[in-house]
Amino acid sequence: MKAKKAQYSQRGPVPQDVIGAVEFELPALAPGQVRVAVLAAPINPSDVLTLTGEYGLLPPLPATGGNEGVGRVIECGEGVASPAVGSLVLLPVGCGTWTTHLDLPAKHLVELPHDVDPVQLSMLTVNPPTALLMLTEFVDLQPGDWVIQNAANSAVGGYLIQLAKLRGLNTINVVRRASAIEAVKESGAEHVVVDAEDLPKRVREATGGAHVKLAIDCVGGVSTENLARCLDEGGTLVNYGAMSGERCMISPRYFVFRDITLRGFWLSQWFKQATPQKRTEVFGHIAGLIAEGKLQARVQATYDLDHIKQAVQAAASGARDGKIIVEPNGPPRAAI
Amino acid sequence: MKAKKAQYSQRGPVPQDVIGAVEFELPALAPGQVRVAVLAAPINPSDVLTLTGEYGLLPPLPATGGNEGVGRVIECGEGVASPAVGSLVLLPVGCGTWTTHLDLPAKHLVELPHDVDPVQLSMLTVNPPTALLMLTEFVDLQPGDWVIQNAANSAVGGYLIQLAKLRGLNTINVVRRASAIEAVKESGAEHVVVDAEDLPKRVREATGGAHVKLAIDCVGGVSTENLARCLDEGGTLVNYGAMSGERCMISPRYFVFRDITLRGFWLSQWFKQATPQKRTEVFGHIAGLIAEGKLQARVQATYDLDHIKQAVQAAASGARDGKIIVEPNGPPRAAI
Repeated sequence: MKAKKAQYSQRGPVPQDVIGAVEFELPALAPGQVRVAVLAAPINPSDVLTLTGEYGLLPPLPATGGNEGVGRVIECGEGVASPAVGSLVLLPVGCGTWTTHLDLPAKHLVELPHDVDPVQLSMLTVNPPTALLMLTEFVDLQPGDWVIQNAANSAVGGYLIQLAKLRGLNTINVVRRASAIEAVKESGAEHVVVDAEDLPKRVREATGGAHVKLAIDCVGGVSTENLARCLDEGGTLVNYGAMSGERCMISPRYFVFRDITLRGFWLSQWFKQATPQKRTEVFGHIAGLIAEGKLQARVQATYDLDHIKQAVQAAASGARDGKIIVEPNGPPRAAI
Repeated sequence: MKAKKAQYSQRGPVPQDVIGAVEFELPALAPGQVRVAVLAAPINPSDVLTLTGEYGLLPPLPATGGNEGVGRVIECGEGVASPAVGSLVLLPVGCGTWTTHLDLPAKHLVELPHDVDPVQLSMLTVNPPTALLMLTEFVDLQPGDWVIQNAANSAVGGYLIQLAKLRGLNTINVVRRASAIEAVKESGAEHVVVDAEDLPKRVREATGGAHVKLAIDCVGGVSTENLARCLDEGGTLVNYGAMSGERCMISPRYFVFRDITLRGFWLSQWFKQATPQKRTEVFGHIAGLIAEGKLQARVQATYDLDHIKQAVQAAASGARDGKIIVEPNGPPRAAI
């Protein structure tokens, strides 16, 4: 049976140059395995950095792109009782999801409800837990506490706004361009400000002098310092990305005189350290919120595998207002 | 009685321009007070930053310079049983020590041994506790563990080398110019390297691939990142100064992929939080080591109050190999 995947055999500075769609032959399905037709898989910033070689963990080459997604079971191997053919399943993290078909051990698959948008479910395992864990693992926040984040227009930023609101936390959302303000407000954000030298002053004015305990940085450069300047004495700054391509830049005075702590968050590291129980708890909580329609990300565009270069180029662009989704089997998904 | 002090009535970018010696009249000594002739008082980087207005805590103007020092009791007010006239005493932190005479409550003074160099004792309360507390308050270090620091040629750097050695810790000492290497080796340092892009490689070679748990930064700029690159995964970086005048610059990858934590240390903050018992323990330990000759700082030059501008200029210069000391009553001290 003919199948197709988005593969790369080298890494390079222009991510869309190294990836392309290739056909491959599916073998006979092995006992204990199920064959899954992939319905939807997002392109995350970590996927782009894996193509350029800048990510902290790089798979051996050649590799198939994509780290998460959902699919439908189309065939069950010998000895498989569940999931049944037709089931919607969550793909295990890191299995190379930009492909029409994947053969996977049945026991690695988690069944998902049928009545929930598979595109929203396809983004479950990377961005939402990143947002949730940054809110819960660094500072003991109580309802009414304030959090500031930059890159508020990113998918993680949007999830963070929604998750914070559900916990009674207030967010201050920093964006790099005025044209992003409306989209962030539509995510439910009350306070959205454009980054600049006078950020602390405008944050004080907008919030009535809120005491900010936690800052979340995905930009780097002086943006990191701008967040530090908005923090209360003793506050914590957590970085999880480098959208500006620059180093984090902060004057020593914020560490020395204002007792700011700067740390990083990496979901892969959390995965390694968390107990299976904790992982189940986190993903269960997030899946529930997505199913209830309380947690969602904006989607900018979807692409099939024949347009994977355009999809990666769109994902790598800074000026998006939503996620880029790969639909390896193309729409309409109802046909699968 | 005529006295003299180094006073400033404004702050400005050139520290020696704002300070000058002024004469003043000593009043009759009040009951419960003693009159102290100041023997020696250092010029610390924090004193220079107080003159330029860059420090985290600024006294009201006009103010007398100097935060620490030692003196000899020359007169006791009514009701004072001790310290007796002739006693060598430690001046309380922050009392403005660049002055020939100070009238102080007897109960605020701690007596010091007579057979120890008063110049070494005059540096007791600022730099040595900074070095000690950075070694003890952030990471639980065990004998054999490795620490890396830059600005190793500073007074704090020298104290840190000696204090680490006394605890069985290994230090890697980074300097900004090759001409500083010898002086740092004379402080007892085994590993001294000049800062550069390839610092991590040279540190690995020099130490046989040591696992470094703690890094101490007093420079900022890319020097901060160079230290971060030498740290083990999960290591801690503590900043306590900005000798380069630049922001700390570190790529997000060290926070995210290598779990580095960046914090700051400020002795004034520690003072506020520490119990009186803990403060006594720290200063007693340090005074003992100085008295035993196990802890000392190099002195580059001493100045009297008539040359306070030259003294401050020398202290503010980057290319020193020792501390600048103010001797308000001038040498020979034996005459006092």
